Amino acid sequence: MKLAVIGAGAVGRSVVELAGEYGHEVVAVADSSSAIVEPDGVDAEAVLTRKAEIGVVGDDDPDDALAADYDVLVEATPTTLGDAEPGFSHLKTALERDRHVVLANKGPVAERFGDVRALEADSAGGVRFEATVGGAIPAISTVEDVEPSHVTAIRGVLNGTANFILTRMAAEGLDYDHVLAEAQDLGVAEADPSFDVEGTDAALKCVILSNVLSFGAAADPSSAREFTLADAAVSGIRDIPGSALRLAAEDGRTVRLIGEATGETVRVAPRLIPENGTLAVNGTQNIVQIETTHAGRLNISGRGAGGPETASAVLGDVGRLK
Amino acid sequence: MKLAVIGAGAVGRSVVELAGEYGHEVVAVADSSSAIVEPDGVDAEAVLTRKAEIGVVGDDDPDDALAADYDVLVEATPTTLGDAEPGFSHLKTALERDRHVVLANKGPVAERFGDVRALEADSAGGVRFEATVGGAIPAISTVEDVEPSHVTAIRGVLNGTANFILTRMAAEGLDYDHVLAEAQDLGVAEADPSFDVEGTDAALKCVILSNVLSFGAAADPSSAREFTLADAAVSGIRDIPGSALRLAAEDGRTVRLIGEATGETVRVAPRLIPENGTLAVNGTQNIVQIETTHAGRLNISGRGAGGPETASAVLGDVGRLK
Repeated sequence: MKLAVIGAGAVGRSVVELAGEYGHEVVAVADSSSAIVEPDGVDAEAVLTRKAEIGVVGDDDPDDALAADYDVLVEATPTTLGDAEPGFSHLKTALERDRHVVLANKGPVAERFGDVRALEADSAGGVRFEATVGGAIPAISTVEDVEPSHVTAIRGVLNGTANFILTRMAAEGLDYDHVLAEAQDLGVAEADPSFDVEGTDAALKCVILSNVLSFGAAADPSSAREFTLADAAVSGIRDIPGSALRLAAEDGRTVRLIGEATGETVRVAPRLIPENGTLAVNGTQNIVQIETTHAGRLNISGRGAGGPETASAVLGDVGRLK
Repeated sequence: MKLAVIGAGAVGRSVVELAGEYGHEVVAVADSSSAIVEPDGVDAEAVLTRKAEIGVVGDDDPDDALAADYDVLVEATPTTLGDAEPGFSHLKTALERDRHVVLANKGPVAERFGDVRALEADSAGGVRFEATVGGAIPAISTVEDVEPSHVTAIRGVLNGTANFILTRMAAEGLDYDHVLAEAQDLGVAEADPSFDVEGTDAALKCVILSNVLSFGAAADPSSAREFTLADAAVSGIRDIPGSALRLAAEDGRTVRLIGEATGETVRVAPRLIPENGTLAVNGTQNIVQIETTHAGRLNISGRGAGGPETASAVLGDVGRLK
């Protein structure tokens, strides 16, 4: 398939770098201010070098990438809330041209799921978004396989930054501020870590999962309950003292930021869990636990973030669109 | 889709029972001596009751089921080795009629993978076999998504009977014979448990996985290395004394029957593993660990066997064939 990659952050760059290994060709790349369009396929290494050295991908306009002749638009611009722009418009443009869309950007499916499904219904193109939840973990496709109406709940550790911090607090007996500083030094936490430590990132992923369950089980989309971030009950990890983890450990437990999604509710909060249990993944790992009607509980864990990991999920989705 | 279900053991019966919930219709069912064919869909409850009460599914001949008008043949007869008959012939008949085949029977893909792929290449029908490895765990479809050429190795706990026995030996400090008797009372082990405790069942699953990796990565099927059970290095759990598990526990480890599959080797053996590590799933649970080039390690655990669990994998495959 021919890909147009919109967004040249870690994920977009990894998709450009790895597309050839999955048998696909990148015909356009855009960042916020530039683009390159090559109908015979861009020179991936040259594009990535150019971006690294001078901060642009090419001499064209971003709109040229949206207008290019591609089969799949990969939307990898930063997640935005509310109207989910400009990502939503990129998706809309592609679908109105009857092209496919693969999202790494959570905004459109967390905040405007109904609008996305409506545009998809009127288009020959399809929309997939495995990369928006759990990085390399095939969460959404596993829910599709067992069918959303056969899933009673999904829970998990969906933010690697928060999980890393709590893992280190438990392992070293250190306080939050100390471990946060360590995480920032390692590049595991951002300079402004709120999105991760307040639970917003995990909540967006749970909102997406609840939308998948709700719309997947509904007789028709117009009757499906739509979730947005506003529907999520969210609390983060800022207020957890080191003493809470020491107390938990005395009882064979630990504290982790756990997200829960059903077709009815979305909730993210720190929870006490068995310290050697399945949910207690370590460091930046993620885990998704899917409760099914006929197949019991499925657990899938792996790397929840990272350029190559997320690109792997994007390219897996491209393969499913063939 | 219209399904013909060949085999009325636990898996076949569960597929008949659950097909409607996945939006499919069963038009034919066969056991070893009888069949029922209903173009408008069989009465699932009546068929299952008949089978339970008098041991047959209907008044027709098994060949009538193979000749029926179906979209997908579900092959759920007992796994046989060597020529994999009669399962292989059932698959051949369906593919020669340009119908799809979903296997729960391991024989054809463990012992005759090349022949299966060749028949599939000449047919409008496709062959899927998620249910042959790891029950409810989406092992094969996850390997497909990340692409076999991007998988360096797969390892796991693939036999619930052996894992149950070792889990109980470790937990209770009991010897093999005692725990085997307990497992047989619970129906977790067969009267003749060799297939499970000698590692043959786990080995067949690893052979299937190695075939998926080998054929998936090959430029063309004729150059792919084909694996059969004869290629597997297998040792089971019969000779593990209770003392070995006690010794392991002193070092924070335990013993589990671990299968490994790459595009080059197939190996099943008891191994020392960290007792709280990811591979140390408990009881009859299975786990599949997939090592990938770009996405790190993916772990998927869940129920590895059972009628509804395996039927869930079969019906997931039917959905992927649509």
